[in-house]
Amino acid sequence: MGKRLAAEFLGTFWLVLGGCGSAVLAAKFGGDGNPLGIGFVGVALAFGLTVLTGAYAFGHISGAHFNPAVSIGLWAGGRFPAKDLLPYIVAQVLGGIVAAFILLQIAQGNASFLIDGSSPGAFASNGYGALSPGGYTVAAAFLCEVVLTAVFLIVIMGATHGRAPAGFAPIAIGLALTLIHLISIPVTNTSVNPARSTAVALFAGAGAISQLWLFWVAPILGAAIGGLAYKWIGSDK
Amino acid sequence: MGKRLAAEFLGTFWLVLGGCGSAVLAAKFGGDGNPLGIGFVGVALAFGLTVLTGAYAFGHISGAHFNPAVSIGLWAGGRFPAKDLLPYIVAQVLGGIVAAFILLQIAQGNASFLIDGSSPGAFASNGYGALSPGGYTVAAAFLCEVVLTAVFLIVIMGATHGRAPAGFAPIAIGLALTLIHLISIPVTNTSVNPARSTAVALFAGAGAISQLWLFWVAPILGAAIGGLAYKWIGSDK
Amino acid sequence: MGKRLAAEFLGTFWLVLGGCGSAVLAAKFGGDGNPLGIGFVGVALAFGLTVLTGAYAFGHISGAHFNPAVSIGLWAGGRFPAKDLLPYIVAQVLGGIVAAFILLQIAQGNASFLIDGSSPGAFASNGYGALSPGGYTVAAAFLCEVVLTAVFLIVIMGATHGRAPAGFAPIAIGLALTLIHLISIPVTNTSVNPARSTAVALFAGAGAISQLWLFWVAPILGAAIGGLAYKWIGSDK
Amino acid sequence: MGKRLAAEFLGTFWLVLGGCGSAVLAAKFGGDGNPLGIGFVGVALAFGLTVLTGAYAFGHISGAHFNPAVSIGLWAGGRFPAKDLLPYIVAQVLGGIVAAFILLQIAQGNASFLIDGSSPGAFASNGYGALSPGGYTVAAAFLCEVVLTAVFLIVIMGATHGRAPAGFAPIAIGLALTLIHLISIPVTNTSVNPARSTAVALFAGAGAISQLWLFWVAPILGAAIGGLAYKWIGSDK
Repeated sequence: MGKRLAAEFLGTFWLVLGGCGSAVLAAKFGGDGNPLGIGFVGVALAFGLTVLTGAYAFGHISGAHFNPAVSIGLWAGGRFPAKDLLPYIVAQVLGGIVAAFILLQIAQGNASFLIDGSSPGAFASNGYGALSPGGYTVAAAFLCEVVLTAVFLIVIMGATHGRAPAGFAPIAIGLALTLIHLISIPVTNTSVNPARSTAVALFAGAGAISQLWLFWVAPILGAAIGGLAYKWIGSDK
Repeated sequence: MGKRLAAEFLGTFWLVLGGCGSAVLAAKFGGDGNPLGIGFVGVALAFGLTVLTGAYAFGHISGAHFNPAVSIGLWAGGRFPAKDLLPYIVAQVLGGIVAAFILLQIAQGNASFLIDGSSPGAFASNGYGALSPGGYTVAAAFLCEVVLTAVFLIVIMGATHGRAPAGFAPIAIGLALTLIHLISIPVTNTSVNPARSTAVALFAGAGAISQLWLFWVAPILGAAIGGLAYKWIGSDK
Repeated sequence: MGKRLAAEFLGTFWLVLGGCGSAVLAAKFGGDGNPLGIGFVGVALAFGLTVLTGAYAFGHISGAHFNPAVSIGLWAGGRFPAKDLLPYIVAQVLGGIVAAFILLQIAQGNASFLIDGSSPGAFASNGYGALSPGGYTVAAAFLCEVVLTAVFLIVIMGATHGRAPAGFAPIAIGLALTLIHLISIPVTNTSVNPARSTAVALFAGAGAISQLWLFWVAPILGAAIGGLAYKWIGSDK
Repeated sequence: MGKRLAAEFLGTFWLVLGGCGSAVLAAKFGGDGNPLGIGFVGVALAFGLTVLTGAYAFGHISGAHFNPAVSIGLWAGGRFPAKDLLPYIVAQVLGGIVAAFILLQIAQGNASFLIDGSSPGAFASNGYGALSPGGYTVAAAFLCEVVLTAVFLIVIMGATHGRAPAGFAPIAIGLALTLIHLISIPVTNTSVNPARSTAVALFAGAGAISQLWLFWVAPILGAAIGGLAYKWIGSDK
């Protein structure tokens, strides 16, 4: 179990360092009109590639969840034992927090770096209403996170199904996360992962922390729906 | 059959939610000069990834068509039975419509959201003439949709051929759809899929609905050509 | 042999339609400051995906060369019989020309479309000196095409080697072509493929035709070097 | 051994030609506001694709390190013999230098090309402080290179582990390098590879050479940490 938890810790560390790191350090490099910044396409690619690469590195050790909603959804879908939920989630949240801390040390190496907690997406935090990148309501944000996490779990369960082609699941799952970000960064800055949201909220200020509930409730609800849905669709009966 | 139709419903749901969703929510985030928007590259990637991920999740259940033209083209190519065409197409169209409805709920969470039906690509709709993103004629739009759907079917039939490497078809097919979008978003906003076109046209206004015929006729014609062409090229005789 | 030539015809058709098509129709959509255009990244992706998808569709039929330089390089590397060179090359050039003709029909559906033969990259043509997108000399263009085609052949021969993982070659080869475009569009608009250069030059005007010699000589020279180099490196002795 | 060293030479040649080449020739094509330049997303993709394609071409010959830090990290992780370290590293550095030299010949084919050694990222060189693209301190640069190289080695060791899916490692490792660049180009212009840094520094001027120590020390330290960490996590005990 120690190595499995180390794998979940490191995988979630990688997800937050790479996904949130690309957003904080590179998304809008040089400001408006500068073609060098990676934009939402680059950030979406980065989040997906953390999971694609992490799943090839750690999949055979821990199953490569890197996300409390994924662990809970797989439990709902009958693929993960309840007794492992808590240690997995603790390892994921801790891995994310350590990554956010290291990211902060790197970002502060730039003299003009500043976390403005009243600004949407501060330190790559998730938010709704005034803290949504595009100014979306709490209802839209909630719906968006529920639906996207539900489909995410369906893709995860389908791509790791015994009748799916072996070995390709990390590609399908990682690129599903890229796709989810291509859709929803404007809405919530994209969570679908409570560990990722918690990790950066701790450093992003009171606003992000006050909205953190949504990024636990909605992804977990969506993941449970997705896990149960695929349990039926993918069964042989 | 119920689970196969559920898979087609969900896969087409994902195609419309992800592909059209990225276009509606993220393509031009912040307007001109803002480097964050995902542009046509991001939308092309999103459409392709819906199919790549959906095919790994559902391919072993329904074959992962997610598109009436694909079902008809595979029938023309001798790979799909005629009796399954109607239920598949109904499931696909319904899945797309539900996705468009949910996308509308999310998009309306932004106070400035408005569907201007006289504007090309409104709510990610397909169009020609005055409703073509780049102002292309109906003839150019028709030719473009026929040719691209024909090649799409050739790639689908080739990549799923018994002598092609096993397991890679979702990558080839998904990225073929990305490629098709990289070419033709300026011409028709890219359909090659009547279910996708119908789903958003229902919400995009009278203009999109009046042009919907082309996005059934041209993709289906192209798909039949592609299916028949590969039936000959890929046969062992 | 008929089906192999049909596969080479269609694959090169796809390469020119998709690669040059994305460049002509979508690269600079809306002009400066508009974030929707796909830029060189999108064009590079499109060229690579034509080969990735075409190789999964046709690889088991014709070997998926789609490029006279590739056919000649594989012959130099001992992988392709001399007697098949001429028919393959004819099929490739014809497929490219038909694609360019169809692309022209689509592009002319836009009232503002115009081929300005004195402008670099007109109708996605390749060029050097005054016709190089970035104004590079003929010597730089020649060196660039030789070196990149040489490495392209090395990747092709390595990824299809008996000891390389089976089934992945289309990914490696397609994305190698994407990479080659990411490097060299500014220099020559990237050829590494005489069929692709010839196809669009026929429609791009006298300037492109007068420079066409370089895009036969340099890619073929590079391909021969690459083929011979890998013949030694990859041999078991 | 000669062929293994030739493979390392050519692979590192490809890494520097493609990664640094795309940065020098195409990153900011046309300047601010021009949508054609490939930006940091394109450069990140190019670096990753050099390794993805090179690993499919040469992996079965040399193991496809293309990077002194990777060779040392694999030695620390118990996967590579100490006696091969020196010849591998020499071949890698030489391959990189030859690529930088050829890149210079191509780049000088543009009349306006100039290497301004006091400008960050000159000739794709790595740097910190005044030579960091985003003006990051030496401490931030050091931390960033250590952490990213450590995770890079973890991904490499995990994806090539006997229990990981066979054949996918080049995808995981190449795209990990893309991800690393998406995060850290603004910080150090991204090294994680002393051979790549050395190759271009030799042509970029005294500033880059004076900072070269960091791009040997930090990547090698990180690689050793990553190699040792995975040696424990990935062991069966």
